[in-house]
Amino acid sequence: MTLALVSENRSFGGWHRRYRHASSSLGCEMVFAVYLPPQAEAGPVPVLYWLSGLTCTDENFMQKAGAQRVAAELGIAIVAPDTSPRGPGVPGDPDGAWDFGLGAGFYVDATQAPWSTHYRMHDYVVNELPALVEGALPLLPRRGISGHSMGGHGALVAALRNPGRYLSVSAFAPIVHPIDCPWGHKAFSRYLGDDRSAWRAWDACELIATAPERLPLRVDQGEADSFLAEQLKPEALEAACRAAGHPLQLHRHPGYDHSYYFIASFIEAHLRHHAAALLP
Amino acid sequence: MTLALVSENRSFGGWHRRYRHASSSLGCEMVFAVYLPPQAEAGPVPVLYWLSGLTCTDENFMQKAGAQRVAAELGIAIVAPDTSPRGPGVPGDPDGAWDFGLGAGFYVDATQAPWSTHYRMHDYVVNELPALVEGALPLLPRRGISGHSMGGHGALVAALRNPGRYLSVSAFAPIVHPIDCPWGHKAFSRYLGDDRSAWRAWDACELIATAPERLPLRVDQGEADSFLAEQLKPEALEAACRAAGHPLQLHRHPGYDHSYYFIASFIEAHLRHHAAALLP
Repeated sequence: MTLALVSENRSFGGWHRRYRHASSSLGCEMVFAVYLPPQAEAGPVPVLYWLSGLTCTDENFMQKAGAQRVAAELGIAIVAPDTSPRGPGVPGDPDGAWDFGLGAGFYVDATQAPWSTHYRMHDYVVNELPALVEGALPLLPRRGISGHSMGGHGALVAALRNPGRYLSVSAFAPIVHPIDCPWGHKAFSRYLGDDRSAWRAWDACELIATAPERLPLRVDQGEADSFLAEQLKPEALEAACRAAGHPLQLHRHPGYDHSYYFIASFIEAHLRHHAAALLP
Repeated sequence: MTLALVSENRSFGGWHRRYRHASSSLGCEMVFAVYLPPQAEAGPVPVLYWLSGLTCTDENFMQKAGAQRVAAELGIAIVAPDTSPRGPGVPGDPDGAWDFGLGAGFYVDATQAPWSTHYRMHDYVVNELPALVEGALPLLPRRGISGHSMGGHGALVAALRNPGRYLSVSAFAPIVHPIDCPWGHKAFSRYLGDDRSAWRAWDACELIATAPERLPLRVDQGEADSFLAEQLKPEALEAACRAAGHPLQLHRHPGYDHSYYFIASFIEAHLRHHAAALLP
């Protein structure tokens, strides 16, 4: 597998780079972004995988979160994949909606046609992309994972389904219980089919009950988030963690919404949460 | 004059807000953004005016520069106007180009038809907008000004033409000598006419020779900036400042380009430069 450099920008003494590559798990070409801190010039560094939310590409987080400053200070790389397969032959929402299909892969491995051909974002994010970047770039197999909204769901599920693969996990305004919200119903019924028992393997709240690894979760949630009551439901995560004895730090922030202004305000705290586990 | 709130986002304990208002100097409705730090809830705070570059609106800087963190720490507000008049009846580049007309007001007061009706961005940015926001929002008349590229030109010219109006000035990758570069030739010949003697009043290098106030300039320039040699020419600013005895801190940064990744990397240093003059 080869990486083709799309662009690069110097940033806080390190490099923001975008690469294109052929993805075998997704059956299309994909672009991802990486921030390499200055320390990566001396040797490999730990890496935080960031999963973005609905409608995003690799660019939103790198442009808007302001994460590079602290990543450069700590010596942690950040890898930001796209949010779905893309390109010729990749089907999108039949109605052109923004909450399914292109930009809305939900980090699951679809089992239903026509989605199962390309929509395998869990496999891509958890297996293919780390193997690729940790082989080609100065990155250690010391991984944290985080994300926002749909990507927060993706981060929690990736960590819960793959014990030992990540040393740290966090999320901003995650969809914690997709089997019980409209975004999740729409995506899971199409990607995974009508049998709701198959949905539970992709739902953080359901996975927490039987998780073999109790990696502490850090979650931040704005209380003025317009998706809070209908889609996000952090109280479901609290209840699941309480019932299972799973460690959870849930920080609620009055006045903050669902935007990158919220993420930027608290990304430093998340990076330091990951650094505590990722750095020697 | 009234301000209509367009949107607001909590950010680093303060507020990012966008307002719409009728502009008398531009003859159209305008949207601008303001970041109010937490200290503005207790009383008025100093303000940095930020002028963006070609193609931008009020949104680019607020989304991408990562300035709010340090502004919140220091207790400095930031006001970011649009880069040109906009809306029904405002003419743009006849060829639809991105370097003239809409998104490219060049912070001058046009004298030539049809531009002179609306394209009066200097008057708007220096007079109308400060009077408006300092009257309606908790902002002190203690002003700094900064900007990027075309907006760096705008910031330098605004400070040099208006002694006493600003306490501090800085710029990222500014067009320092528009009468001697392609962007400037195109814009000035249309906005100001073919008489090049009229152009000199809108050129930082020309204004420095006779400036009645020697406000120190801080300028940062990336050495991998693709516009460096043809459009930006910081050596012209160095020569003008040397000849006039005008204080200049010019910081050149190997590897950095013209993007917001460059601005984000050094915005903290600029904010602290302004704070030294703006804060008691």
